[in-house]
Amino acid sequence: MAERIDGHTLLIGLMAYPIRHSMSPTMHNNAFAKLGLNYAYLAFEVTNETLPSAIESIRTLDMRGSNISMPNKQKVIPLLDKLDPAAKMVGAVNTIVNDDGVLTGYTTDGIGFMKALADEGLDIRGHKMTLAGAGGAGTAIAVQAALDGVKEISIFNMHDATWANAERNVKLINEQTDCHATLHSLEDRDDFKREIQSSYIYTDSTGVGMKPLEDKTLVDDPSWFSSDQIVFDTVYAPRTTKLMKVARQAGLKHVYNGLGMMLEQGAAAFKLWTGEDMPVDYIHQILFSDDQDK
Amino acid sequence: MAERIDGHTLLIGLMAYPIRHSMSPTMHNNAFAKLGLNYAYLAFEVTNETLPSAIESIRTLDMRGSNISMPNKQKVIPLLDKLDPAAKMVGAVNTIVNDDGVLTGYTTDGIGFMKALADEGLDIRGHKMTLAGAGGAGTAIAVQAALDGVKEISIFNMHDATWANAERNVKLINEQTDCHATLHSLEDRDDFKREIQSSYIYTDSTGVGMKPLEDKTLVDDPSWFSSDQIVFDTVYAPRTTKLMKVARQAGLKHVYNGLGMMLEQGAAAFKLWTGEDMPVDYIHQILFSDDQDK
Repeated sequence: MAERIDGHTLLIGLMAYPIRHSMSPTMHNNAFAKLGLNYAYLAFEVTNETLPSAIESIRTLDMRGSNISMPNKQKVIPLLDKLDPAAKMVGAVNTIVNDDGVLTGYTTDGIGFMKALADEGLDIRGHKMTLAGAGGAGTAIAVQAALDGVKEISIFNMHDATWANAERNVKLINEQTDCHATLHSLEDRDDFKREIQSSYIYTDSTGVGMKPLEDKTLVDDPSWFSSDQIVFDTVYAPRTTKLMKVARQAGLKHVYNGLGMMLEQGAAAFKLWTGEDMPVDYIHQILFSDDQDK
Repeated sequence: MAERIDGHTLLIGLMAYPIRHSMSPTMHNNAFAKLGLNYAYLAFEVTNETLPSAIESIRTLDMRGSNISMPNKQKVIPLLDKLDPAAKMVGAVNTIVNDDGVLTGYTTDGIGFMKALADEGLDIRGHKMTLAGAGGAGTAIAVQAALDGVKEISIFNMHDATWANAERNVKLINEQTDCHATLHSLEDRDDFKREIQSSYIYTDSTGVGMKPLEDKTLVDDPSWFSSDQIVFDTVYAPRTTKLMKVARQAGLKHVYNGLGMMLEQGAAAFKLWTGEDMPVDYIHQILFSDDQDK
């Protein structure tokens, strides 16, 4: 079988470090091949130091765009020409689109979160969410949920380096959207429990429960949940986190890992570059055909 | 079937303009796939103006290397760290290898010419060649033939913009190799005929006879050739040029177009990047399976 790359193929990058073990190249190249789109998606090891030159190469090589991941999601902003409103609020970019040399930054993590819920037939607009974590994923989730119409978000965070960012984020949401956001300390367990119990959805974006800390969870008491609630964990390795087990013990039906969000954030970037819908079910099958733990 | 590109795939470029219709991406990507080598070869539209930034991107994106074609083969030289001796003599580079940020320039066109002859069981070392044309391909052919041990080369050229380059080239060959090179005017038909008749091989690198000028040839009289000579035309579209027809009329058995040279110059670059031998017969089949005119 002839290879699909020819002289017309356009490059799309992924600029991060470390990055060689990312699933994104497999995701996007299989989607391009399935839809007959003439792009190739390659990972490049790019640090903060080489980022300016790497962004310049998007223009020089007329790449269609790039994904941006750690440690470059914030540092890339001053290097771009334009910023999508959500990316501006989040203060981070994970996707760049190059339109004839004009580079626009987007964040698709929050879109991926909302879309993953929609894929399950769930609509959290008009409801209250409690969200643990105010790092990159948590900030993107909070901003997109607020922009999309979630009524109230209670954000819980440690008093660590991300606290100031969480404060800024809560302020922006309250100023620029109709959503009411509040910031809480994860140390206050009573407050944490109360907010979760009054929420339609509890989302954990902290990464607690991810390998190799898979026996950890911020909520280990099933009595904190009621069966009509939604629990969403952004972790997808393992496929079933400790938090998800606790939620299922509590009788919840709507319990999700971060796989759908991961696929949908990629699909949103794919749509920005190609204008086409990623065949998400097909890609899910390609990436996780040997998946035992779902 | 899953796509072969993953997070470990290394990029190799082709920097030229125009370039979208090049066969090189198809050649190299099929060879990578066949041998299970984790590279992707993509074409980039690069002009003299964007060349410095494009070369910088080889370093920044840690590309394994790049091919360079018109109009950048000469202009690229001051942008590189090292130059292979043949590339230095030719004054042109068609292949860059990136070893941990150190960029070395090579020229593989002449290697491709010599290898194409070797593939046919022909050895022109110790013999005399008459060569028409002193452009990029002609210069590379003359230098490599001289370096490899061809005894005498009579170069014929028009008194056009390439004449000065031809003079420089002849001088370098005489100074730096054991080959004796001379420069002649294509306008002197008697001299041209005499030199061809005293040569073991006549090579035309001028491109005369290429589509859409396929009814043209510098030698239209079969009596200039004798049946034991070799005639090599660097043109491969059409597969059989007017010159080749004239040579066959003269009873020559060893009459070749530029297809083998094109494949072998690619194979030589492939070897520099990967350390592996390109599966040339397989690639020939991929590229020219629908070939009627051979």
